[in-house]
Amino acid sequence: MPDHGTAGMRRRHMLQQVGLTLAGASAASGASVAAEAPPWMTEQGAAADDTPYGSPSPFERAVVRRVRDRSPFMTTASAHAPLQDLHGIITPNGLHHVRNHAGTPTIDPGRHRLLVHGLVERPLSFGMDDLARFPSVSRLHFLECSGNTPLYKTEKVDARWTVQDTHGQVSCAEWTGVRLADVLAEAGVKPGVAWVLAEGADAAAMTRSVPIEKAWDDAILAYAQNGEHLRPENGYPLRLILPGYEGNMNVKWLRRLKLGDQPFQTREETSKYTDLLPDGTAKQFNFVMEVKSVITRPSPGRGPGQPGFCEVTGLAWSGHGRIARVEVSTDEGATWQDAALQESVLPKCLTRFRLPWTWDGGPAALQSRATDETGAVQPTRASLLAERGPNFMYHYNAINTWRIAPGGETALAV
Amino acid sequence: MPDHGTAGMRRRHMLQQVGLTLAGASAASGASVAAEAPPWMTEQGAAADDTPYGSPSPFERAVVRRVRDRSPFMTTASAHAPLQDLHGIITPNGLHHVRNHAGTPTIDPGRHRLLVHGLVERPLSFGMDDLARFPSVSRLHFLECSGNTPLYKTEKVDARWTVQDTHGQVSCAEWTGVRLADVLAEAGVKPGVAWVLAEGADAAAMTRSVPIEKAWDDAILAYAQNGEHLRPENGYPLRLILPGYEGNMNVKWLRRLKLGDQPFQTREETSKYTDLLPDGTAKQFNFVMEVKSVITRPSPGRGPGQPGFCEVTGLAWSGHGRIARVEVSTDEGATWQDAALQESVLPKCLTRFRLPWTWDGGPAALQSRATDETGAVQPTRASLLAERGPNFMYHYNAINTWRIAPGGETALAV
Repeated sequence: MPDHGTAGMRRRHMLQQVGLTLAGASAASGASVAAEAPPWMTEQGAAADDTPYGSPSPFERAVVRRVRDRSPFMTTASAHAPLQDLHGIITPNGLHHVRNHAGTPTIDPGRHRLLVHGLVERPLSFGMDDLARFPSVSRLHFLECSGNTPLYKTEKVDARWTVQDTHGQVSCAEWTGVRLADVLAEAGVKPGVAWVLAEGADAAAMTRSVPIEKAWDDAILAYAQNGEHLRPENGYPLRLILPGYEGNMNVKWLRRLKLGDQPFQTREETSKYTDLLPDGTAKQFNFVMEVKSVITRPSPGRGPGQPGFCEVTGLAWSGHGRIARVEVSTDEGATWQDAALQESVLPKCLTRFRLPWTWDGGPAALQSRATDETGAVQPTRASLLAERGPNFMYHYNAINTWRIAPGGETALAV
Repeated sequence: MPDHGTAGMRRRHMLQQVGLTLAGASAASGASVAAEAPPWMTEQGAAADDTPYGSPSPFERAVVRRVRDRSPFMTTASAHAPLQDLHGIITPNGLHHVRNHAGTPTIDPGRHRLLVHGLVERPLSFGMDDLARFPSVSRLHFLECSGNTPLYKTEKVDARWTVQDTHGQVSCAEWTGVRLADVLAEAGVKPGVAWVLAEGADAAAMTRSVPIEKAWDDAILAYAQNGEHLRPENGYPLRLILPGYEGNMNVKWLRRLKLGDQPFQTREETSKYTDLLPDGTAKQFNFVMEVKSVITRPSPGRGPGQPGFCEVTGLAWSGHGRIARVEVSTDEGATWQDAALQESVLPKCLTRFRLPWTWDGGPAALQSRATDETGAVQPTRASLLAERGPNFMYHYNAINTWRIAPGGETALAV
């Protein structure tokens, strides 16, 4: 038989390495196993119309979003995606991370309007049916909260954190909607317009200023996510998608776009979501999420198991475009190997990487280092901290370290 | 302002064509609209931890799978995906079509085993944890039931059918799992092996023979669907994915692979899922789903609305590889225009197509015609019926027609 298996695997030792159980020494024993019908083969299952809208298996109830920091104000919380249990690049809608400033409103789409006004020729108000008549576009993009990965301050790091805690505010979906450019063109953009105010219809009236160039480039007024309507907690019925920009600018429950010649200096871009520099001044308008990656397995709570073959897999992304390369180290950065990237590699989209590895049972420290198509390379934590100083809170994108102990226990190391 | 809008749209008339409402003649009126806060802005929304696993909006309760043919034996039914309400190429897991032969079993993954036996060097039995240790692969592929689109017999066609009824047994997901080739290589495939029997752990013991070449090519033992574990009705915890092959061969709840030198001639490939020829003999082993497409909007129940701009959109797919071209006709095939294909166009995957169209309010008949990368072109219904004769039941892939009446009512035409 020709070797049709996975390149890079040592075929002869794979069986032993993955710790397989031999069913028996002969095909006869195989036949006896085949004859033992499990209980679910002895009775009819559930009817197809029992689940007009399906749910995960009851055996997967632990795979859920999780709030890391519980507070009395849970409507302002973040619910993180369980990256340690996800596969491929799509985040299913039920598990897409959530970051709200005043909870999830329940919006009647028949009453929802989008107002386009300010420096326009014709102020316009759109119902959802109006927007549905425009040409549509679908693209796969990641969304990441700018506060994802709160590892700037060593003293605030909890050694028990999993990848869901440290990196679970990133997700990826196929978004469908209308090009923002098409809608603005209908309103007629006046000369001198440089900024668009986007306002959400939640109780926080979440509001951000967006450069008009982003509208002409690739911004989407999205009404669908992974094929179906947006989920309530992710902006139903309308959300601004600004591919590659920090999560909160992708305003959910979008109700208003106001065009102007200056940024609007809203609360969420002055008192929040600015970057405090070492001299105490704030750097405004750090929109693009930089190149970043994280190993999702092995990771805390999902260690390598017994010694032997173990795939190292994770996610990489960049707000500047495509991922060009992901390297993986198992010795805390002393040596690196190129990981395979899952095809197709799409711009401003999660990219799954994988590397075959044989864990020898000894101590190890796993790192991944992503490079994007602009040549930007994910920095080490030391160089990021040195560059940004002690006051930064957002846009943390350093190389991450999972330390594996001889027993297989895996923990965050900073 | 430069024209940044969608190519192919007549900008000057778009506003009128999509029937927009002017909010007012001035920005001042816009400001007053902006000041009217809807009720959901006046109180805190739901907390992030209210939905550890999310659900669609209560306003979307009508977007569900639907069983077309109700029967006393609902465990053998098909539940169709609501294609008329879907966007992009991903089918969300809750809406992926379902075709069961004995209902959906509830399987404990801790007790589920996969047996590999027959003409192998080493019969092997795998638990789900064993399979999780193999290298993983993720790919986007469509699945289509070979009985999708039951339009061979004009007298059995119901003029009230929607696209959910006629084409809703096709869906698309990102599948993750283990290469079948890797698992078979571990068992050691003996010389002369030509077929693999795949058996499901449902009460139908759904069983099909698969040519060994498919295993070496691109078959996957899938445990995940769109990032999360498989859904119960789609094979949890393990499903065979044979990209491009008819749906029922993608055996769900997979428990057994037996290798042999002949096809196993199971019930599902002798008394069913064969193609009855005009002379009364049956053609066996028609695995690959041929090139096909359907317009999902406008479609029955989702007509063009008022006259004016209307995007024509739909899905195309081929079990032989990538879609190369989709043409759309609005005059029942008299003239054709090339539709735009959503990037990336992936092999054996749904491809979304879109064409801008201006409906003049008169009668129209919409058709789409797909061509795949092998050069195969979707046939007309007349040529398909002539070629296949009166006895065919499966693999219907003819060009479909939606007829639009002057009032906008849209109905299936055969």
